[in-house]
Formats: sequence, structure tokens, C-alpha cells
Amino acid sequence: MVIKSRETTEQLNDIDTLVKWLASFGQSSNGGVNRLLYSNDWLKAQEALKTRMENDGLNTRYDGVGNLFGRLEGTDKNEKTILTGSHIDTVIDGGMFDGVYGIVASLLATNRLYKKYGAPKKPIEVVSLCEEEGSRFPITFWGSSNIIGKYKLDDGLNKKDTDGISILDAMETVGFDKNASTSNIRDDISSFIELHVEQGVVLEKTGNSLGIVTHIVGQRRFNIKVIGESNHAGTTPMSYRKDAMSISAQIISYIADKAKATDPDLVATVGKLNAKPNVPNVIAGEVLFTLDVRHYQDSVLDNFCNDISHYLKFISDEQEIDIHMDKWMSVEPVTMDAQLTETAKKIAKEKELSHQVLVSGAGHDAQVFGSFCPTVLLFVPSVNGISHSPKEFTKKEDLQTGVELLTALLYELAY
Amino acid sequence: MVIKSRETTEQLNDIDTLVKWLASFGQSSNGGVNRLLYSNDWLKAQEALKTRMENDGLNTRYDGVGNLFGRLEGTDKNEKTILTGSHIDTVIDGGMFDGVYGIVASLLATNRLYKKYGAPKKPIEVVSLCEEEGSRFPITFWGSSNIIGKYKLDDGLNKKDTDGISILDAMETVGFDKNASTSNIRDDISSFIELHVEQGVVLEKTGNSLGIVTHIVGQRRFNIKVIGESNHAGTTPMSYRKDAMSISAQIISYIADKAKATDPDLVATVGKLNAKPNVPNVIAGEVLFTLDVRHYQDSVLDNFCNDISHYLKFISDEQEIDIHMDKWMSVEPVTMDAQLTETAKKIAKEKELSHQVLVSGAGHDAQVFGSFCPTVLLFVPSVNGISHSPKEFTKKEDLQTGVELLTALLYELAY
Repeated sequence: MVIKSRETTEQLNDIDTLVKWLASFGQSSNGGVNRLLYSNDWLKAQEALKTRMENDGLNTRYDGVGNLFGRLEGTDKNEKTILTGSHIDTVIDGGMFDGVYGIVASLLATNRLYKKYGAPKKPIEVVSLCEEEGSRFPITFWGSSNIIGKYKLDDGLNKKDTDGISILDAMETVGFDKNASTSNIRDDISSFIELHVEQGVVLEKTGNSLGIVTHIVGQRRFNIKVIGESNHAGTTPMSYRKDAMSISAQIISYIADKAKATDPDLVATVGKLNAKPNVPNVIAGEVLFTLDVRHYQDSVLDNFCNDISHYLKFISDEQEIDIHMDKWMSVEPVTMDAQLTETAKKIAKEKELSHQVLVSGAGHDAQVFGSFCPTVLLFVPSVNGISHSPKEFTKKEDLQTGVELLTALLYELAY
Repeated sequence: MVIKSRETTEQLNDIDTLVKWLASFGQSSNGGVNRLLYSNDWLKAQEALKTRMENDGLNTRYDGVGNLFGRLEGTDKNEKTILTGSHIDTVIDGGMFDGVYGIVASLLATNRLYKKYGAPKKPIEVVSLCEEEGSRFPITFWGSSNIIGKYKLDDGLNKKDTDGISILDAMETVGFDKNASTSNIRDDISSFIELHVEQGVVLEKTGNSLGIVTHIVGQRRFNIKVIGESNHAGTTPMSYRKDAMSISAQIISYIADKAKATDPDLVATVGKLNAKPNVPNVIAGEVLFTLDVRHYQDSVLDNFCNDISHYLKFISDEQEIDIHMDKWMSVEPVTMDAQLTETAKKIAKEKELSHQVLVSGAGHDAQVFGSFCPTVLLFVPSVNGISHSPKEFTKKEDLQTGVELLTALLYELAY
């Protein structure tokens, strides 16, 4: 089912049809969605959302970078705003649910509360964040980071897409003033709530419909270069070799074994490996591979990475070769708000919704807000854990359960 | 030192200057040598050698495919020919010594014997084999295989270079009749002697100047494909993964450990590895790597490969994934002639030349002749084991020691 007409959207009050409706902006023939920041399809989607918000009785506005807000005014003018939503941009050939689900679920929940209970005590704002993925420009969380003041417009000056267009110039083409001096910082936000698809297999494996996130992991990424000696595969006895491939294999096995033994919430991945000269009958002289390590505690991350570093030193000494380990990315873990998390758990329990706490291994806008205001992140299952792919899918009943929890949580906080 | 004039070559009687002279045909500015089969530089080198042979008093002739022979007639007309030499072709950007050394050493040894002792009892022929490397056409040992009747001209019909030129058409451009009906098979050869650079590190590590080869290894080559599940590196716990990279690492470590434990003469190499999608933050869904196994005994090769196959089955069952092991190359081991090898050892001992027996891990024309007539293969050291590179080098004193052994061996056999 594809819904194209904006006029019909007032009648769309099922979560799955709303997801499909919003995903239809930028959808390609293979079912993938392309809505890169400040593209035409991005603008069309934001504008469609704006119309829908207005039809739902929300007061709409964009901020300076194109984050879209739909506000349901509260009766108590002294209360700060409850912000709920997610991001509108996608990766290239992404899925229908990533980001979109959190926006339309927030819209639906707010609308239902308003219809049933009238105006809330505290104002609720549904937000469609302009950018999270970093798919067009080499910067992530542009939308949420501008809201909390982590980025200013100047930070987008030198961030260019593959066509050499800067983020500020692209912004201007869709109607946002790149020279605007007004700050986007929102000092009136009391909390941020994000509902998202898990993009992992944990909920599917455990059979729970809801995940209540306690932490978003920190990450460390490294390049590890093993420098051996390239030689003839036939004429070099095993005992004379400095084979960068077999030494790398030993290291990668160690990394996997050590990760399994360290903590169930620690993950370590060697996803990329390039060997030189990479031909069947020559011993590899050099192997470069990446290491991606994630956990929700800095100390666990540091201990693990130190252990790998010591192991590399040991292998380097033992084999009399050079091994380099270079860190090229470091992101700190973020803790979700304990009180909001407890409230979400309490509601799920009362409503007998199958749920669990878990750690998010992926990054989300909630990690940006988490350092700024009380934040909670809620997950629904992803079939086969697939995301960033046209195959991304979440069952209708799980989408509905997520909206049920979000609606109840907004009621608890705002009314 | 680069010698260009053919007229001066009569005066060149040092092995190192002769190597440099012959290597000057097809030499590039970086010191690499390019003498692909039936190229202009290949023809110039053969013609220069032919002139030199004639100046040395040898009777020269080409056979149908361009192998060049320089014959020193024997006094006993009933005796078969002792053939000695190596190949004139090179890999792309190859070294100065590979092949060339065996040709000019044979020329020098024959010339010295003739000058000192006159005509031998048995005829000696110095051979410059037209092709061994398989660098231009997808066929190896074209020269020696035509001499022993393993290949006929028809076998070159469909072998084309990257420009689509067949080996037979290329042959005709340098003056050899592709429709010639005469067979190249030589049924008058009593033995073949090849002197070559080791292209490995064994002699350098042991400090010996001479290697007397007992066997040329057999080879098996495989593609091994590990099919796991590609997933998000952050959201997939270690216990839920089917990580093709870490499983491949475990297999490669096993292969290296098993090879070391099996036999000092067995080598096993994983030289090439390609992962999919090969990005840092995605678990590899598929890894393809090669396995090159070599040993001089079929039974050892078979047992080792069977063991690897069983291990792959075990891992496949344990991890519940598919692993495919496909053999794409199989070459049988060849044993050098025991009597010739003993004679070479006896001479080296008598002359107090530092020597050892060893196995050749690389292929040579001697493996083609080895199934046809009594054959011996002799090595001199390669500095750092480097070959197929402009950096290929063998010290002058080692080149001389090789000629000394070859001369004495030819004397023993022919006089």
C-alpha cells in the first residue's frame, strides 16, 4: 500500500499506514528510501509532516537548520516542554522504519491523547529531526546537536557532500538562511523521548515486543596494521615466515574470544580486512584490519582495548614484526534517565506488555539529548535484526505496542 | 654495468657479466626485466644467445616453438645428448637471474670444458627454453612441454594473451611456422640438468652456496568460502553472531598451526582474502580466501588437505554455517634422478663446496623433464629469498660456485 495524497492523511490513524505514508517520500522502485539531508525528497517529507501536524491541531515551526516541531500547548505556562520524535533523514537505500517510526508514533500518540483528554498540563512537541545518519555530509546528529548547542551553524561550513556542496549551501537551497544569527538552542525542554526500531536481534531472540534502553554504548574504532614479510608461498618454509595473514588471523581469533569472555554487553568486530599483495601464491607482507569495540561503560571499553594493545605488543615481540594500532574514533557511552526508564518499565508492567531492559549498540539522537536533559529511548523489534536496507521490517503488532507505551508514557509525564 | 654490443660478448667470460648482458635485453629503467614469450625483446635475446653460441663453436638451431639449442658434438655417435639450460622468458618486471642464470652458466661451463678438454664423448646441448613462466599466455612450461611431447602446437590454439592474440599467432610474428607439422619431441636426450636461483630463503638461512634438489613439490590450491550472516556491529551480541571474519580467522590459524606440526617440508599459505561487505561497522557476511599447499609427497598433501576438509566440516556443524572448499589446481610432485643427485653431491663434497639437499617449493622446467628423463636441479642462494622482482639478486661468488659444480657435473657425465 502506498499513500501519495496529502489530503488523505487526516484519515490515516494506523501506525503502519502512517509509516508507509511518510516512507513514500523518497522511496525507490526496490522499496528502499533515499531522503538525504536537504534533498528535494527530504523537503517534501518535512512539508507533508508539517501539514499533517497542522491538521492535527499542532502549532508548527522549523528552527534554523530545518528541525520541524509540532507543538501541543500545555495549560500550565510555567512548565517546560516534553519533546518526542526522531529523525527524518535516511541512509542511502535505507529502510521504511528507521527514524520515521519514532516521528509518526509521536504524532499519533499526541493526537490520541489530545482527542481523549484535551490539552495536557505540560506542552508536548513532536519533533522531526533534520539529520542523524551522516549519509550526505561527513557529520552525524546535525539536527539534535544544533538543538542542544553542541553544534553551531559555523560547524557546517566545511562539511561537504561528494559533489563539494557544503551543508550550509545545501540548507539554503531548501529555504533555510545560512547566515541566520539566531541560536537553535532550546533551554525549555524538560525531557526527550525517542521511540525507534531496534536494528538488532535481541528483542526478536528473546521474544519481547519492547526494549527499554538503559545505556547507549560508547565506541572505539581502530586500524590495526600487521607488517610481516612478503615471500614466495612455495619456497619459504613455515618456520622462516613472517606471514601477516596468519598472524592477523591469530589476533582476530583472540579479539573474538576475549570479547565473548569479557561481558555479554561488549561487542568487538573486525569488519574490514585488506591484505597485500593479496594473491594466492604469495605470503602476505601486510594486513590492515579494523576493530570496532562497543560497551556502555568507559572502564570496560578501556580495559578491553588495553588488553588488545598488550596482546599486540606480545605478538609483535614474539614474531619480531611491527604492529600498529591507531584509534580513529572514540564516542563516550551515554546513560538514559533512570527515572524515565523506571516509569517506562512500570507502565509496560502494568499494561502487561512483554518488555526488557537492554543496551543500545547503535547510536541515536537520544545519546545527544542524553547529555542535555532527561532522556529515554524505547525499542520495538526488527525482523532478523535487519536495518539500513530495503528489507528493514517491524511487525504491525510491535509497531502498535510501541505506540501504546509511548502514549501512556506521554500521559504520565504531561497530564 | 650494461653490455649492449654483441661483438663484445666473445670476451665476456665472467658469469656475472654474462648474466647482466643477457638480462639487458628487455631491461626497464627500474632494473626489472620484461621478456614475455614471442615479444621483440624475447627474440632479440634468443638471437643474441644464438650468435654467442656460434661464436663459442656450438651448432645452433631452433625447434618449432622457438626453443634454442647450441650443440657441442660428442665423439661417440651412439651416445644420447646431455641437455643443460633453463628458460629465457620472464615474468612482468622480473629479475635478472631467474632462468637467465641457468642458460649462461650452461654456456660458460660447456665452453670451458671444450677449451680445456676438447670434444666430449657424449654430445652436450645448451638450451634456452622459450617459455616457463606463463606470464603472457595462460599456459606454463610451453617450451619444455613441447620438447617432451606433453604439448603439441594445437594446445596453443586457444591460449590467448590479454590482447586476444593466440600463442600460435604470436609465434608466427617472430618467425616460427604455426602450421609446421614436425614434432618437437626429442627422443635423443639422456639427461637434463638445470641450474637456477633458489627464489627462497633456505640456502641463505643455512649459509650454504649450493642446493641439490631431491624433489619438486606437488601443489594443491583451493578457494574456501565461509558464509556467515552480515549484521550490525553494534546491535548484534557476540553470542548471536555468525561472523564470517572471526570464523575464517580461526580456520586460518588452524591451517598455519597444522602445517607447522605436519612436516618441515610442508607449506600452507592463505595469501588472498576478500570479505563482504568489508566495512568497519558491519559484521562480515561472507569471506573468501585461498589455500595453497605444497609438499613433495602426494600422500602428505592428501592427508593434510583431508584434515583441513574435516576441520571445515567440524566448524560448519559447530557454527551452523556453510563452508565451501573448492580445489582449482592440482600438480603432482616430481622426484629428481637419484643417481644424478648423488653424483652432484659427491662432486660438491670432493670440491668442498658448501651444499645441502633440499626440496624445491617452486615449479621449474626440471619438473617437466623429470617425468621424461633423468633430471637434476641445482640451486644457488637468492638474497632475502626475493625473486620475480627487480630486487632479485645472487652474489657473484655464489653464481661462480654454481658454474663450478655444473662444469664438474657435465665433465663427469659427458667426458
